[in-house]
Parts: sequence; C-alpha cells; structure tokens
Amino acid sequence: MSEILEIIKSNPHFKNCSAAFFANLRTSAAITHHDKGHILFVNGEAAERFYLIKSGWVKLFRETLDGTQAIIDIFTTGHIFAETAIFEDNKYPYSAEIVEPAEIIALPLQALKNEIESNNKLALSMLSTMTGYGRRQEQEIEHMSLQSAPQRIGCFLLRLADQNARGEVKIQLPYDKMLVASRLGMQPETFSRALNKLKEKTGIKIHGATIEIDSLNQLAEYSCGACSSEFPCKDLRSCK
Amino acid sequence: MSEILEIIKSNPHFKNCSAAFFANLRTSAAITHHDKGHILFVNGEAAERFYLIKSGWVKLFRETLDGTQAIIDIFTTGHIFAETAIFEDNKYPYSAEIVEPAEIIALPLQALKNEIESNNKLALSMLSTMTGYGRRQEQEIEHMSLQSAPQRIGCFLLRLADQNARGEVKIQLPYDKMLVASRLGMQPETFSRALNKLKEKTGIKIHGATIEIDSLNQLAEYSCGACSSEFPCKDLRSCK
Repeated sequence: MSEILEIIKSNPHFKNCSAAFFANLRTSAAITHHDKGHILFVNGEAAERFYLIKSGWVKLFRETLDGTQAIIDIFTTGHIFAETAIFEDNKYPYSAEIVEPAEIIALPLQALKNEIESNNKLALSMLSTMTGYGRRQEQEIEHMSLQSAPQRIGCFLLRLADQNARGEVKIQLPYDKMLVASRLGMQPETFSRALNKLKEKTGIKIHGATIEIDSLNQLAEYSCGACSSEFPCKDLRSCK
Repeated sequence: MSEILEIIKSNPHFKNCSAAFFANLRTSAAITHHDKGHILFVNGEAAERFYLIKSGWVKLFRETLDGTQAIIDIFTTGHIFAETAIFEDNKYPYSAEIVEPAEIIALPLQALKNEIESNNKLALSMLSTMTGYGRRQEQEIEHMSLQSAPQRIGCFLLRLADQNARGEVKIQLPYDKMLVASRLGMQPETFSRALNKLKEKTGIKIHGATIEIDSLNQLAEYSCGACSSEFPCKDLRSCK
C-alpha cells in the first residue's frame, strides 16, 4: 500500500491535497493489472471510482447511436481520468478500455469530492489543469479543420518525441497503427495514404512500430505551419 | 451602473460570488457598444479584463503560423469569455472579434482571481462549467471525425432551434452563412454542397437567413445517428 501512496503523492494532480485525503486513501486505493481489451467502465454507469495510470495505455471513448466508436483520447502513465464524473451526476462521462497492458490505481471518487469541496488549492489546480485540457482540445479542433492528414500524423509524431533532441530521432509508436488512425479520426485507408505522403515529403522512415526521423525541425517545418502554436509545443507538458 | 450589476448578478456564472465581489464591480465594471469587425483583444496580450456578452455575437479565434484563422467558438448573450486568462499567465489565450453589433460588459480579471482564491463555491461552479465545455469540445471532435458535412450542418441548426417545438419550425441564422461555414471548419464550397444535400435529404427550406424545417425529428433522424448523445441534446443548456 505504501508504494501506491507514494505514486499518488508524487503525482502533480495531487500536490495540493491534504493529509486527511491521503490518510483516507491508505485503506481505499487499490492497484489492478489488466490485459489489452479489458473494459474498466462504460459511459453512463454509476461512478464510484476515478483512476490514475501507473503504466500502460487506456482509451477513453463513446459510442454513437449507429454503433461507431468515437475516441476521446488515449492516455498513459501519470494521467488521471473519470475524475470529472463528480460534475456529471456521478456517472462516467465516457467508456474506458485498456489498449496496452496496464497497471491502474483506482481511487474513491467521494474522497476527491470531499477534498475539492474543502480544499480551494486543489480546486484551483484542477481548474488550471482543465484550462490546459480545453486548450489542447481547441487545438485538436483547429488541426482537424486546417491541417492536412499527413500534417496531422506529423504533429502526432512530434508530440511523441523529445522535442529538444537534435540530429536523428527514433520514436516508438506506443500502440498499433490502426489505433493511431482511430485516435486521429481517420479511416485506415486515409491514414495509409497520408503516412506515405508524409514519408515522401519529410524523408521519415518506418520499420514496424519504429519511426526514424532525420531532423525534428524538418518534420516541424512541414507539419506546424497550419497550427496556431509554435514548435516546440508550449502546451506539451500539460497534455502528453 | 446598477443595470450592469443586475445583469451580472442574474448571470448563473456569478451565482456563488460574494457581496465583496459585487461591491468591487460597482466601480470597475463597464459596458461598451461595438460594431461588427471590432477586435476586443488579441491572443497573447496581457489580460486585465474578462467579458460578459449582454447582446450580439463574438468570435473567439487564433491564427496559425501561415496566417489562416481558426475559429474556437462564436458566443452570444449570457456567455463569459477570457476568464481562463487567470490560468494562462494572465495573457489572453485567443483573439476576440465582434461579428454582430454587440454590447459587452468588461470586468476586472484580478477581482475574479481574488474571488475564486477565497470562494471555493465559485471555484467548484467554474469546474462544473468547464467540465460541460470540455464535453462539448469532445463532441465537436467526435462530429468532425464521424459526421458527414450535411449532418454537421443539420446538427448546427438543431442546436439553434427550440428542441421541444413540434410541427414546422423557423430558425434565423444568427450570423452570415460564410461565418457558419468557418465555425464548422468547412471551406465555402464544401459548405454550399453540403447545404444542398441537407435540403435534398431532409426537405428543409432556406430563404436568406431563415431556415424552415417541417419537423425537427426528421432533421434529427438524419443528423444525430453519428453522435454519441441523443436528441434532444442533453448538454444544450450548458453550451448554447
């Protein structure tokens, strides 16, 4: 249990929480291991817990009336999710599925609710986090309107890279290509065509899940013209 | 001044604010009238004020490096904007332009900052509002991925209508058609083609800025299949 508490205490989301909050978690936080494909919860279910990712990847999504899946985001280590159920009548506002084997820490939603109702510093840091999230979503909408499909893939790769790296950079795709396509809201065939065009335009090389990039600046030059931010991405700390 | 105070006090965003906050506004809030085209502030400028719309329409946008405008949203009566500058190093996180003649109430950002730092109820209600805004953006991203262009125009029209109306409904477009196209992230020619297809599929009629719809249910049946929400839109109260 002390390991779980250490992970929670060292996470920036919880830096303003009280000793009473952490004491409560000592008996109520639990870590679970899940394989790819496991559904953690479903959109609309009563929410008693929110989650912190220790490792692995989790997809948040909703389903449309005609049965198509709309991916909201795919998160990894350090991210919390389902915490906004507090403001959604204590119902999960989306579904969550494990997309790469994961260790997930489950935390009681009521404890978080009590804490933000009594701890203004936590409420303010959540407001700041949500402002960053809102800004990231605005940028996503902007990119969907203004960037070409190859530029959007280039942007996705730049966001995975250490943007201060110089010279040749290697990036590992964190999950399979078809999931990258869905994350970007592209049909598989659109994604394949766009990836080929990106290779042709920027000289990146793809070997399985490894992407080799001669120069991040060259990729940024191609991808970032149709973006209102600048490379390196200023918002990256809050949205990776 | 008392008129301005009344407008502010009756706005749901301020319902949890203290008497001290309103007393401060008595001398510092100001109402201004602006014509179409007026720029209120520019992305990145130092922010000393945030704004409440009394009437008219305001476009929030950013510009990409290659000079294209990306519209974030277009707001009207009752909306506040630029308040998140508090969490953006006191800089405006976007630009704001009047798109239909407007009366705008300017309020001191520092007063709001002091208030949310000392009044947790306000911080909580802002968190709730931002959760609703985040959900709306997620839906926008979903629609851009999964809805066809005619469906997205249908969705835009349904959101302007009184969704409980039965029988024939008339809607006035709130601003010109080219701005609707930009708001939806569509090129003018894509928008025209999509609007023609929507007319053909649903029988809506367009006379200038007036749209006649025989039945909202018929329009919803065409537009809402590729959406994870249901008609009538549950989130509409918080996002119109």
